[in-house]
Amino acid sequence: MKRVVVVGGRGFVGGELLRLLVHHPEVQVTGVTSDTQAGRAVESAHPPLRGSGLRYSRRADLEPADLVFLAGVHGSTAAVLDEIGALAPKLVDLTADFRIRDPELMERYYGWRREGERAEAFVRGLPELHRKEIIDADRVAVPGCMATSAILSLAPLASRGLLREVQVDARTGSSGSGASSGSANSHALRSGVMRVFAPFDHRHEAEVMEALGVDVSMTVTATPQVRGVQTVTKVGVGEVSERELQAMYREDYGAEPFVRVVNSPRGTYRYPDPKVLLGSNFCDVGIVADNRGKALAMGGLDNLVKGAAGGAVQCMNLMLGLPETCGLTFPGLHPV
Amino acid sequence: MKRVVVVGGRGFVGGELLRLLVHHPEVQVTGVTSDTQAGRAVESAHPPLRGSGLRYSRRADLEPADLVFLAGVHGSTAAVLDEIGALAPKLVDLTADFRIRDPELMERYYGWRREGERAEAFVRGLPELHRKEIIDADRVAVPGCMATSAILSLAPLASRGLLREVQVDARTGSSGSGASSGSANSHALRSGVMRVFAPFDHRHEAEVMEALGVDVSMTVTATPQVRGVQTVTKVGVGEVSERELQAMYREDYGAEPFVRVVNSPRGTYRYPDPKVLLGSNFCDVGIVADNRGKALAMGGLDNLVKGAAGGAVQCMNLMLGLPETCGLTFPGLHPV
Amino acid sequence: MKRVVVVGGRGFVGGELLRLLVHHPEVQVTGVTSDTQAGRAVESAHPPLRGSGLRYSRRADLEPADLVFLAGVHGSTAAVLDEIGALAPKLVDLTADFRIRDPELMERYYGWRREGERAEAFVRGLPELHRKEIIDADRVAVPGCMATSAILSLAPLASRGLLREVQVDARTGSSGSGASSGSANSHALRSGVMRVFAPFDHRHEAEVMEALGVDVSMTVTATPQVRGVQTVTKVGVGEVSERELQAMYREDYGAEPFVRVVNSPRGTYRYPDPKVLLGSNFCDVGIVADNRGKALAMGGLDNLVKGAAGGAVQCMNLMLGLPETCGLTFPGLHPV
Amino acid sequence: MKRVVVVGGRGFVGGELLRLLVHHPEVQVTGVTSDTQAGRAVESAHPPLRGSGLRYSRRADLEPADLVFLAGVHGSTAAVLDEIGALAPKLVDLTADFRIRDPELMERYYGWRREGERAEAFVRGLPELHRKEIIDADRVAVPGCMATSAILSLAPLASRGLLREVQVDARTGSSGSGASSGSANSHALRSGVMRVFAPFDHRHEAEVMEALGVDVSMTVTATPQVRGVQTVTKVGVGEVSERELQAMYREDYGAEPFVRVVNSPRGTYRYPDPKVLLGSNFCDVGIVADNRGKALAMGGLDNLVKGAAGGAVQCMNLMLGLPETCGLTFPGLHPV
Repeated sequence: MKRVVVVGGRGFVGGELLRLLVHHPEVQVTGVTSDTQAGRAVESAHPPLRGSGLRYSRRADLEPADLVFLAGVHGSTAAVLDEIGALAPKLVDLTADFRIRDPELMERYYGWRREGERAEAFVRGLPELHRKEIIDADRVAVPGCMATSAILSLAPLASRGLLREVQVDARTGSSGSGASSGSANSHALRSGVMRVFAPFDHRHEAEVMEALGVDVSMTVTATPQVRGVQTVTKVGVGEVSERELQAMYREDYGAEPFVRVVNSPRGTYRYPDPKVLLGSNFCDVGIVADNRGKALAMGGLDNLVKGAAGGAVQCMNLMLGLPETCGLTFPGLHPV
Repeated sequence: MKRVVVVGGRGFVGGELLRLLVHHPEVQVTGVTSDTQAGRAVESAHPPLRGSGLRYSRRADLEPADLVFLAGVHGSTAAVLDEIGALAPKLVDLTADFRIRDPELMERYYGWRREGERAEAFVRGLPELHRKEIIDADRVAVPGCMATSAILSLAPLASRGLLREVQVDARTGSSGSGASSGSANSHALRSGVMRVFAPFDHRHEAEVMEALGVDVSMTVTATPQVRGVQTVTKVGVGEVSERELQAMYREDYGAEPFVRVVNSPRGTYRYPDPKVLLGSNFCDVGIVADNRGKALAMGGLDNLVKGAAGGAVQCMNLMLGLPETCGLTFPGLHPV
Repeated sequence: MKRVVVVGGRGFVGGELLRLLVHHPEVQVTGVTSDTQAGRAVESAHPPLRGSGLRYSRRADLEPADLVFLAGVHGSTAAVLDEIGALAPKLVDLTADFRIRDPELMERYYGWRREGERAEAFVRGLPELHRKEIIDADRVAVPGCMATSAILSLAPLASRGLLREVQVDARTGSSGSGASSGSANSHALRSGVMRVFAPFDHRHEAEVMEALGVDVSMTVTATPQVRGVQTVTKVGVGEVSERELQAMYREDYGAEPFVRVVNSPRGTYRYPDPKVLLGSNFCDVGIVADNRGKALAMGGLDNLVKGAAGGAVQCMNLMLGLPETCGLTFPGLHPV
Repeated sequence: MKRVVVVGGRGFVGGELLRLLVHHPEVQVTGVTSDTQAGRAVESAHPPLRGSGLRYSRRADLEPADLVFLAGVHGSTAAVLDEIGALAPKLVDLTADFRIRDPELMERYYGWRREGERAEAFVRGLPELHRKEIIDADRVAVPGCMATSAILSLAPLASRGLLREVQVDARTGSSGSGASSGSANSHALRSGVMRVFAPFDHRHEAEVMEALGVDVSMTVTATPQVRGVQTVTKVGVGEVSERELQAMYREDYGAEPFVRVVNSPRGTYRYPDPKVLLGSNFCDVGIVADNRGKALAMGGLDNLVKGAAGGAVQCMNLMLGLPETCGLTFPGLHPV
């Protein structure tokens, strides 16, 4: 059994991560911290942890482990990286702090100055694109939820030079905003919204841009579900047919355990929809085309699983030499 | 045109009240206050007020009016009553401060000590039970949303001596918790709940008890809708038949403009359901009975309208000599 | 009082139309038909009509009126047009049958052959673009809900030659699918969806194309709310600044009673969101731009009101010489 | 590996059952039938089964197995019982057909005549009350979802003679109505409801009555969530204190793998709420008391898991000599 530690286990991502780890057959959670909850039972914050016996501790009380997860608020990693990094040979960061390598891009989107060399030590935690690097990596930064969906839904086009610039339409449920948030995120005000909260310049845009190597303009709308992210991108594909496009996706993802190409000609479940992925580590992607040079690339995932905690566990599996799908085979709960 | 003032116009109840008053043909809103928002446009908090031109002011800047509404947080009225009371000859209080007359009951349920004589100056703002007193009253306290539903759904039984003690099951949407609230009321945590948050001793229980004159045990569950309150009460009725019970309700409420007796033998909309009352000032009530001595009394309303702001405007109409239904004829929006 | 008749008053649009007409101060509903419900009370299908006394009748029993609305299923108008047209000098069609003038476009999108001259007799029922024609028209075809949002949110750009081709992202709630629909629209399967049900070639696309005179590619996603339509369109605007763009919108819509330009730099309610428009006849539009040549044009409305029944009443007001806003001043219910 | 067959795998319960069985480490699904879908992929109806390769077959094509599940519509079991019973030595029925032993009760609640001896061959599939009988049983009838919650939340009182008669308030999400249902269950009409659809005489009432041996009056309200059932029952407990009551529950359920006693004095998650149980096989129960002789007994579960498919798998585990919790350890997904 490998020993793992979670730093920052109070939020939704931390709770989901703990749920996956506690039920993971090859690891043991030897510590979980919270700056404000030290001493309290983890199950008071996360009901799925009932019976786990886990309690929050202080960072100072952590003991060495095989791998450490950082799941605190964005911006918290940089400050504790050296302290935490000393605890374990391997580290998986779920915050945004080291997702972007280019310091200029980081500063433009986050307003944070990061020394490039520190960011370069992190491998992008997207096994479908960087599996080999992750296996050997000491430090991995899990991408943002919408970035993951956008990147996976567009990578087959980007790698074939079919993308120049793209306009990604991203939609996100309320769990992406975290457990503590202001009145705009209260149930009464957040229910039923179609709230365009980032017409331009959302931070995940920078990740997609860096990962795909093309110019990206992303618009983000808060939509009414609790879990789930979807990205929809219309792309010009010239003479390439739908059949050829779909073949590219199947070629790239046919052997991937957690990416499925979903584009059925009929039925209720034709295209990627996070609704049918709740609790699963799948990212469904799909592409369809009209006969006039346009295609629609779609991606969908559970933002707390494949878009965060599940992606992190997938990376952990690779980093610790475990089977990649270990502890991640839940197929999704539907209907919910 | 009568001049009215709203003290505490930042919350959901205040916003709903302003919406009703701005569209009311016989009154003019001459002032609206907020402790924290003075100077800001009311529409920044309440989109339905777009174009109204209303701005929040300070209490000290209010000018005399014909009637003043108090719609701040519970507990705020007692402190400002004398100051505000001097502004207008008539006052309608939407807070809980003076809903209960019995000082002991007040202390038991709220932990507040109130001099009885101050509370006695307030008439319970339920026109269906106290129309005459309201017409002549200077001060009216609008009952709580769940109390209104429970009282109206049970009054025909209470007034005929058919109630001894009752166990009211109350369900309430999230807008009853107000706009600013903690993580338990965030969209992610509040969506889809069936959260029993008051198994016993909810404050509205005291109002029902005082209004009906019987022992009441109320249980309150937070349910997933934004607006709407429903109360369901099983009562023993001995030999009285369903037909007789329904006749009592029709007798009491047949002439009421805002209480409808709803118990159809078939169809989708058989019994009181707040879903079909959104935005309306109706309280639907209904009663059905089995043939074994039990009956089920049901009530439903929009907690922000009949359960708060609409009920207050109904009282205002009576107090200012206006037609009781003036400005309150919106029939409900359905489906939403 | 003008006499109006509603043909096809069983669905959601018919119910909303009846709600508006029954409360309209200048008209009287003298007949409402349903092929399957003749003889039954309208309130059994539409609770907001409780107390209206309206009953469904057969088409054959209708008496002459000043204006007739057609609100049946799409495809039903063409067959009854001559019969119904004889009942009244004015006719407002809420079905899709005559929304498109170009017979080729009609056939491509609907598979229906329409004689062009019949469609040409219909004026597009969008007062903001065709007020004068509507005033004089005998026959008006109300545009589709998503088409209305897209057209109004893009018209200021189109009329200034700033649009070449556009990719409209449209999102729609479940009430757009009607009351009777299959299991895909059941609550369990429709809740929480982000279901791309028309990646290309949605019928409303044809309307937007014809109205704006540019090539349009529309993608439609079913989203989890009951009411509300939103369209979001990213457009290249070259050197035109955000300030200039917003000035164009204010210029075009500043005097419009039912179109508001909504783009605030801060706050919860910055951009058009149907959530705050429920029950209102507003279409909110907004435009923002980055500093790199791109803009985002947004539109939002209540699909049953401005996107259908409210738009139809607005046309009726113009056609009957009534004030345009008569019966349509409800400001929206929020929060719901 | 044990071979199991599912008869009637098209509905929500069938889909959930297949999801659990496909991921169960000790069984293999060797057949799944649907009267209307024979030949089609199971994943077209149930997205979580994507990749399972399962196809619907006809009943006539089924091969012998170790255990067969009946998950078709209520009323379908009786007709096929002999045919299906011959396929396997063990049978678990998820329909209502043999839940009730008393033929008179069956006829009163269902209008069906059942020979008593056939019903007597079935053991009630509630391991917490009938574990030993289930282990030895050939035929087990899984109780209804609301019945399961009510029975488990009240059994500790009933077995101690503390119940005379009870009034159960039951609330149920939309998935309990199945995938194919009329317009009343459409998303637009079902969203946000508080629809009392059975004030009296709901069929599950009969099960509770028979299981607890006391007179039961159950009221059922359709509430807005998709999954989840909750029962709330106020009971008179005389002099018994809350502490003593909770001790009884802990005594009865302390060793149960799938019943948890949940009554915390504080926090967001104080009492049984199906929201935190989605996908899990837990039934949470709790009891609290005032100091005036009344107690509130609460139960909550996921109606498709512990209330149907999960309960059935738990019975199967016992009947096939497998560990009771095998394949049922998913802790619930939260927040959703």
